[in-house]
Amino acid sequence: MLVECGKTKVLCTVCVQDQVPPWMYKRQAGGWLTAEYSMLPGAGQPRKPRDGRTGRPLDGRSFEIQRLIGRALRCAVDLGALPEVTLWVDCDVLAADGGTRTASINGSIVALYDALLWLEEQKQLPKWPLRGLVSAVSVGIVDGQPLLDLDYQEDNAAEVDLNVVFAADGRLIEVQGAAEKRPFAMEQFQAMLALAQPACAQVVAMQRQALGL
Amino acid sequence: MLVECGKTKVLCTVCVQDQVPPWMYKRQAGGWLTAEYSMLPGAGQPRKPRDGRTGRPLDGRSFEIQRLIGRALRCAVDLGALPEVTLWVDCDVLAADGGTRTASINGSIVALYDALLWLEEQKQLPKWPLRGLVSAVSVGIVDGQPLLDLDYQEDNAAEVDLNVVFAADGRLIEVQGAAEKRPFAMEQFQAMLALAQPACAQVVAMQRQALGL
Amino acid sequence: MLVECGKTKVLCTVCVQDQVPPWMYKRQAGGWLTAEYSMLPGAGQPRKPRDGRTGRPLDGRSFEIQRLIGRALRCAVDLGALPEVTLWVDCDVLAADGGTRTASINGSIVALYDALLWLEEQKQLPKWPLRGLVSAVSVGIVDGQPLLDLDYQEDNAAEVDLNVVFAADGRLIEVQGAAEKRPFAMEQFQAMLALAQPACAQVVAMQRQALGL
Amino acid sequence: MLVECGKTKVLCTVCVQDQVPPWMYKRQAGGWLTAEYSMLPGAGQPRKPRDGRTGRPLDGRSFEIQRLIGRALRCAVDLGALPEVTLWVDCDVLAADGGTRTASINGSIVALYDALLWLEEQKQLPKWPLRGLVSAVSVGIVDGQPLLDLDYQEDNAAEVDLNVVFAADGRLIEVQGAAEKRPFAMEQFQAMLALAQPACAQVVAMQRQALGL
Amino acid sequence: MLVECGKTKVLCTVCVQDQVPPWMYKRQAGGWLTAEYSMLPGAGQPRKPRDGRTGRPLDGRSFEIQRLIGRALRCAVDLGALPEVTLWVDCDVLAADGGTRTASINGSIVALYDALLWLEEQKQLPKWPLRGLVSAVSVGIVDGQPLLDLDYQEDNAAEVDLNVVFAADGRLIEVQGAAEKRPFAMEQFQAMLALAQPACAQVVAMQRQALGL
Amino acid sequence: MLVECGKTKVLCTVCVQDQVPPWMYKRQAGGWLTAEYSMLPGAGQPRKPRDGRTGRPLDGRSFEIQRLIGRALRCAVDLGALPEVTLWVDCDVLAADGGTRTASINGSIVALYDALLWLEEQKQLPKWPLRGLVSAVSVGIVDGQPLLDLDYQEDNAAEVDLNVVFAADGRLIEVQGAAEKRPFAMEQFQAMLALAQPACAQVVAMQRQALGL
Repeated sequence: MLVECGKTKVLCTVCVQDQVPPWMYKRQAGGWLTAEYSMLPGAGQPRKPRDGRTGRPLDGRSFEIQRLIGRALRCAVDLGALPEVTLWVDCDVLAADGGTRTASINGSIVALYDALLWLEEQKQLPKWPLRGLVSAVSVGIVDGQPLLDLDYQEDNAAEVDLNVVFAADGRLIEVQGAAEKRPFAMEQFQAMLALAQPACAQVVAMQRQALGL
Repeated sequence: MLVECGKTKVLCTVCVQDQVPPWMYKRQAGGWLTAEYSMLPGAGQPRKPRDGRTGRPLDGRSFEIQRLIGRALRCAVDLGALPEVTLWVDCDVLAADGGTRTASINGSIVALYDALLWLEEQKQLPKWPLRGLVSAVSVGIVDGQPLLDLDYQEDNAAEVDLNVVFAADGRLIEVQGAAEKRPFAMEQFQAMLALAQPACAQVVAMQRQALGL
Repeated sequence: MLVECGKTKVLCTVCVQDQVPPWMYKRQAGGWLTAEYSMLPGAGQPRKPRDGRTGRPLDGRSFEIQRLIGRALRCAVDLGALPEVTLWVDCDVLAADGGTRTASINGSIVALYDALLWLEEQKQLPKWPLRGLVSAVSVGIVDGQPLLDLDYQEDNAAEVDLNVVFAADGRLIEVQGAAEKRPFAMEQFQAMLALAQPACAQVVAMQRQALGL
Repeated sequence: MLVECGKTKVLCTVCVQDQVPPWMYKRQAGGWLTAEYSMLPGAGQPRKPRDGRTGRPLDGRSFEIQRLIGRALRCAVDLGALPEVTLWVDCDVLAADGGTRTASINGSIVALYDALLWLEEQKQLPKWPLRGLVSAVSVGIVDGQPLLDLDYQEDNAAEVDLNVVFAADGRLIEVQGAAEKRPFAMEQFQAMLALAQPACAQVVAMQRQALGL
Repeated sequence: MLVECGKTKVLCTVCVQDQVPPWMYKRQAGGWLTAEYSMLPGAGQPRKPRDGRTGRPLDGRSFEIQRLIGRALRCAVDLGALPEVTLWVDCDVLAADGGTRTASINGSIVALYDALLWLEEQKQLPKWPLRGLVSAVSVGIVDGQPLLDLDYQEDNAAEVDLNVVFAADGRLIEVQGAAEKRPFAMEQFQAMLALAQPACAQVVAMQRQALGL
Repeated sequence: MLVECGKTKVLCTVCVQDQVPPWMYKRQAGGWLTAEYSMLPGAGQPRKPRDGRTGRPLDGRSFEIQRLIGRALRCAVDLGALPEVTLWVDCDVLAADGGTRTASINGSIVALYDALLWLEEQKQLPKWPLRGLVSAVSVGIVDGQPLLDLDYQEDNAAEVDLNVVFAADGRLIEVQGAAEKRPFAMEQFQAMLALAQPACAQVVAMQRQALGL
């Protein structure tokens, strides 16, 4: 599943592995879902060295994003209704121009849907485990105005950065808002939230189209 | 600076290093501030292996938390008004019973204040760089009710988890809300935010007392 | 530059970095070229864990391939005619179905050509440093018969595996032939070499077409 | 167990893990004890980077010290009388002003005693496995005179550095003496040993008091 | 087994481990053979830092060579005729003056023969698993002339570098030829191959002598 | 310099690097000396995995030993009388049968002497920096009796293990005594020390012979 959002391109794939992580053995039945996020070295300017090649510690930003993707998707899936498998969600950014984390979530849920369809065809799903689609939207404040889906230049200029993940029914899964340089007022935050909510409906419509639903 | 919040204990220290990170050389004047967060192995149950001793990758949760601490504190400081130093903020959790990230922020700003006083005594500060204190509050939804500052057991039972970082004037620095298992309604989110805001005043009062202000 | 060869897809990019590696400082004038090769986790079956995420040592096969790519391209470039830059060649395999190392070389030289054109436009090239295109071809022996460009299944069945890198004038840059399970006769080796040479002309023709030459 | 010795503060904890290391499976019955020692980054001047964050190899000095702590404590315990558990001894230096290795040993044995009491309450100990307390004393030669328990400044000035670990009955467990810059005479070594032995009785008295024995 | 070839000295040992790697469990019966190659830090000029001590990624050249050694030796052994053991072949270069990879292969097969004899004495071999000896020869082109077994200075001056691994019956196991700076003609490659083949007989004769065959 | 002591064989080399470590830049004039110790994988039974290949943390025992070697040799050298070089002492154990750390020290000082002679020939030494030879002796208590230079089997049976490093004039550089399982009496320790001292003279005699002094 290749997601394009402006000049940003993210390749989202879901692989099914026939085992669950060791820490789950004794704790709970069902399956697990985990996500990994990485930018290809040439995705942006300047070139970003590969993790693990230079002996440096891993990149904290990638960690943060992949944890967000994992939480968002796990929220959409009834893990107990999965067979004993791990769903590996891989989001690899081929080209980066802002909004890679929201593009990753929006594409991954489509790839996940496909993977679950494949599992169903294999008769491995006792019941359909997906509770619904999820969609992610980013909003920034540029020159005092809330703005949807910033590109890289706008993002650099933004005073506040908000990412919201919604369930398809409009309820919230994750809200991450951060001041870039200075604190922001509660009213600004509310204005950004208000802008994000309707945008999610559009994303879900595109996801349904991609899935032929 | 040892912060205690319930049974949670976090040791927050700030060290001044007489150089800035290499990537800053050409970009901007002033200083830098960075944070590291770590749990001692015996801080919780069961014992947590030390990062880097076992050859495992570093712990993503710690990365996420230390990035939050760093962003929150940098928002409170006018970096351009610092001399060419790096302020290293270290938050080491001696005992963990919920709320370690908010305790880390609340204690670090006090340790930071002390470090800046020391720099001022050394005549190294052209002007006072701290814009104000910052305070962090966590709120959860347990059994449908919003609740402040959950301990470990409440946290495990929580349906939603919200951490908010405020500037001393009540404006927002960071909002991080996440569904634990299922999506939550916008009303719940607003109720949690409403509970968080007044709590911040109490935290700031305790910080002022600790600093003798 | 996205290369497709059968179901194999490799993304080849070239980034220009304004410095050369430290070991070159005293040794020689000009620039440097280095290559990195990596398979995305979901490129094949089963999913391949990312380098550096699991604490395992890096993957020897990737190392071997990226060294081959680097040697082949350096052979095509007059490094002394480059300005003081490092050309980073990144080959990331999006989908793997055999022949990823030859596809990587065939695509990288095209991306390299583009990067050199860009450098020329920037007036950074005193003279054109590319000596010519390079092309790579793989040949295997399946059921006793030499066969060009095996896919994954054929590759698994192959008794011998040969990769040859040619300069555009038909001379040799690299020859790597390996028995898969049992030694092979000199005659078989010569038959494979004979099959490879004319195939290189076809690759060069496609490269020229992609470059609009 | 927080040990304070002058300005040095070491937090010593003992965790019980319900399994033994893999290499013990076939070799011997009973349990195992292992120690880890680490300095918090802000414990001394200048700030010490965390192990494993910077991609550097681990710190040889910490390794050396934690091996000493482990050997000393294992010598005090009848491992064969333990159930199949690993006792993890963690010594984390919160503030360092000389003598951290002796403080670690002196505090760890107290924390170990507590952990064994807890195991006994759990009815997991067929018999009491502790052979006795252990105590550690450091002696240096400063300006030609042997001196007990040097602080950081004295330690830097010391010509010889001796650490001795005693069993509670005054017998020896470990003797580590090292010239700091130049060789030392056998007489000096004997004078230091003679100073160390009576000091151990004092340490044991304090340990008994802390344990309420 | 210490191999000396000119000033090059390589220590080749084979250790028998009573288990096979995890990935073999379900795939195939028999044993496994794997090789590791490393240069001691003082083997050449200048001193080479040890792998893994400095936090750098492992050395790609060593990886490439040890994979070649492993492939060459596995080709000589009927793995299915081995008991469930892993044969660890270690090639450690004590002094390097060119040709370390061919010396490693030529010595390893002798050490392997010894190890198999030992396994046979232990009655662990249902049948003799070695298909035959293997020998490796390197050829370079210096001043336009093909030359056998270059030393370090000749190797640096060589225009082409070819390593060939032969089975004892003269068939091919691996051919690796690489241009050092510029492409080379097919005729040169053939001349090098022609020089390599008879040289292999000499190596085998020396191996037989060392083994007392 | 290959040292053999019983079946133990250690290769000791000293390399001169034309720079000092970064931390010395501002602190002191002169040179530096550092040691690295490693066992080849096949040096003992069973095979020991290489450091850094498996992603495991480095081996604490090797760290401890190389720090001992470094301290001992630095004690013998007037670092301030060296030019701005780092002397890298590498001790690689080719075969291990007890006493590898004492063999390493005894051989390294000879290799160091050679390296200093070479530096003197290069006219790089303003004055001779070696204060004298150093020698190391190990003593154990087996069946209640002190015994010199234990081999591997004796070492395993030993109740106490003592390593002493002497300056050539008989003064002490390092004393490391450790109980293997149970505490030992002061009288035993003194008996071991008394046995060690005369043995050092023999080692020095052999060193002088090797150096032709």
